[in-house]
Amino acid sequence: MNEIKGGSLTVAGIGSGKFSQITGEVLEALKICDCIAGYEVYINLVKDHFPGKEFLSTPMRKEEERCRLALEKASQGKNVVFICSGDAGVYGMSGLIYEVSKEFPGVQINVLPGITAALSGSALLGAPLIHDFAVISLSDLMTPWEKIAKRLEYASAADLCIVLYNPMSHKRKDYLLKACQILLKNLPEDRPCGYVRNIGREGEECKILTLKELSTAELDMFTTVFIGNESTKVLETANGKKLVTPRGYQFEKSALDDK
Amino acid sequence: MNEIKGGSLTVAGIGSGKFSQITGEVLEALKICDCIAGYEVYINLVKDHFPGKEFLSTPMRKEEERCRLALEKASQGKNVVFICSGDAGVYGMSGLIYEVSKEFPGVQINVLPGITAALSGSALLGAPLIHDFAVISLSDLMTPWEKIAKRLEYASAADLCIVLYNPMSHKRKDYLLKACQILLKNLPEDRPCGYVRNIGREGEECKILTLKELSTAELDMFTTVFIGNESTKVLETANGKKLVTPRGYQFEKSALDDK
Repeated sequence: MNEIKGGSLTVAGIGSGKFSQITGEVLEALKICDCIAGYEVYINLVKDHFPGKEFLSTPMRKEEERCRLALEKASQGKNVVFICSGDAGVYGMSGLIYEVSKEFPGVQINVLPGITAALSGSALLGAPLIHDFAVISLSDLMTPWEKIAKRLEYASAADLCIVLYNPMSHKRKDYLLKACQILLKNLPEDRPCGYVRNIGREGEECKILTLKELSTAELDMFTTVFIGNESTKVLETANGKKLVTPRGYQFEKSALDDK
Repeated sequence: MNEIKGGSLTVAGIGSGKFSQITGEVLEALKICDCIAGYEVYINLVKDHFPGKEFLSTPMRKEEERCRLALEKASQGKNVVFICSGDAGVYGMSGLIYEVSKEFPGVQINVLPGITAALSGSALLGAPLIHDFAVISLSDLMTPWEKIAKRLEYASAADLCIVLYNPMSHKRKDYLLKACQILLKNLPEDRPCGYVRNIGREGEECKILTLKELSTAELDMFTTVFIGNESTKVLETANGKKLVTPRGYQFEKSALDDK
């Protein structure tokens, strides 16, 4: 790390919540820092592993305040690690930290990547993201629904595999249905899909289903949804059904070997 | 892990190549396995850390053979870890392993996620992927160019941030230019973009530039490219220029506080 004047802030992704999914560099940053900041649910996931640290947290929806608290602490000369679930740069806090940091010009900021739910979920379902894909959040807290709808329409028209974050919440019970209705304009009802709930935590659940079945599934904000592209298939394996998108090797081979 | 009959195959992403970017669970799998398989370049990245292991590798372009060798070894009762750079499920080998595995029905397959270049590159550039994004490879080895072109066109029309893998190679010198020409139909010449070369390895290089400048950049297959969405901006920070896509907090706030 650089010579630090006014402390440092490391924004770090801790993955799904399974402690063993944290990378070596994030673990090291957590070990050597003075203070760990973040949303209280994520702080609780790591707290027991780092006794003696100072912890800084705020409840949900207080994101800007949380970023400012962490930057303020760093500006006092402390080395602070700000943790996010998944990756800090995918619907995470690294962007807001950079924006708020102009109020704290002496603080060195460093971002360490983590395993986002698109990757941890895909590993559990099989290999759905082997080819080009789009990641889209269905939360309209900060994005107009019209924009989300347009992204769903274009991503499906482009035959991209699609990962949906925040597919549903108490206040947005019909959003997944609305999203599937848009996708069904371009995609067949039997398009292979999957979802993973509570990745790496208690109650982890994996399901492979069709796009039609997905449209009426009862999910929550801890679920990540995967919609296959036109080549995605369901394979029977020694570990059960898996959702697999080919890169095209076999396809390529049979085209070359054409006999 | 399950009771194993006929050995097991763990397909594991090792991240960019920086040893500290490997997750705890992948490290543990590498420690306890009998044999490490993979493309020889990746084997060389980890070899010195695991003396005494058996190593199985094949050169580039022998992907199917490499998968078959690893599955065969596992079918003989060995515990094999098959390593991929980045994430095994993003342009990686987990899909092909599942497809070839039907020839080896006794082998238990497990996939462990890793940090793909979209995440490690974004952390170095700032926070370009805070909002919805698409990941698209410019390699037409296994995908017709027309399909790639369509995906670029639709992803830019949908205002998605775009990550390009394999932007250029010796044989595909003009592909990045062709891709940028498609993007420029929907996006302005001054759209903030960035690229990262040799992430986590010797010669790591980060650059922020406009879409017009990107179109004539001299890149290679070890480079990952980022194209911002309509809100992406370049911020001056204590660590230099950073590429940041807002989630919309400030925007939201000023809309609410409208005074």
